[in-house]
Amino acid sequence: MNLVTLLGFIAGAITTTANIPQLIKIYKLKDANDISAFTYILLLIGFILWIIYALCINDFPLLIANIVSLGVVIGILILKEKYKKKTPKAIR
Amino acid sequence: MNLVTLLGFIAGAITTTANIPQLIKIYKLKDANDISAFTYILLLIGFILWIIYALCINDFPLLIANIVSLGVVIGILILKEKYKKKTPKAIR
Repeated sequence: MNLVTLLGFIAGAITTTANIPQLIKIYKLKDANDISAFTYILLLIGFILWIIYALCINDFPLLIANIVSLGVVIGILILKEKYKKKTPKAIR
Repeated sequence: MNLVTLLGFIAGAITTTANIPQLIKIYKLKDANDISAFTYILLLIGFILWIIYALCINDFPLLIANIVSLGVVIGILILKEKYKKKTPKAIR
């Protein structure tokens, strides 16, 4: 593996796992009021399309990376839904 | 352009622009308490590495996509820093 390929792998690993701290933060805060559902719905659609694309071109690393990303995004959307009504209740 | 390439372009366009609604939401709420700075610092590093990678392999679409992503992430980090102390002040 040359240095440029390695650079691509590191960049991919970082951007793939970047949303994990966000998932953990929402879980700890039990609040996701500031989180844009639209952003994560776009990411959900985007990662599903990337998975289909990866299957079409038989790119295994791209497939795995996007399955991981999709899992994290689904987790964030589930927590966002779960903690949705927390802030309005606290204000009331 | 065949259907698979088009699929890749659409997937890329969606994941590249996905964070724009998050940027707008923070700007409107003037609050970013639930936003993980760690996630956006990881994305910042990741997109910088993708830009270097794109320059190394002379991939222009990849370069443009990651410059856009980097711009949005920098915007989110700036707003996160700007609205950082809002919530503690409100509690005090």
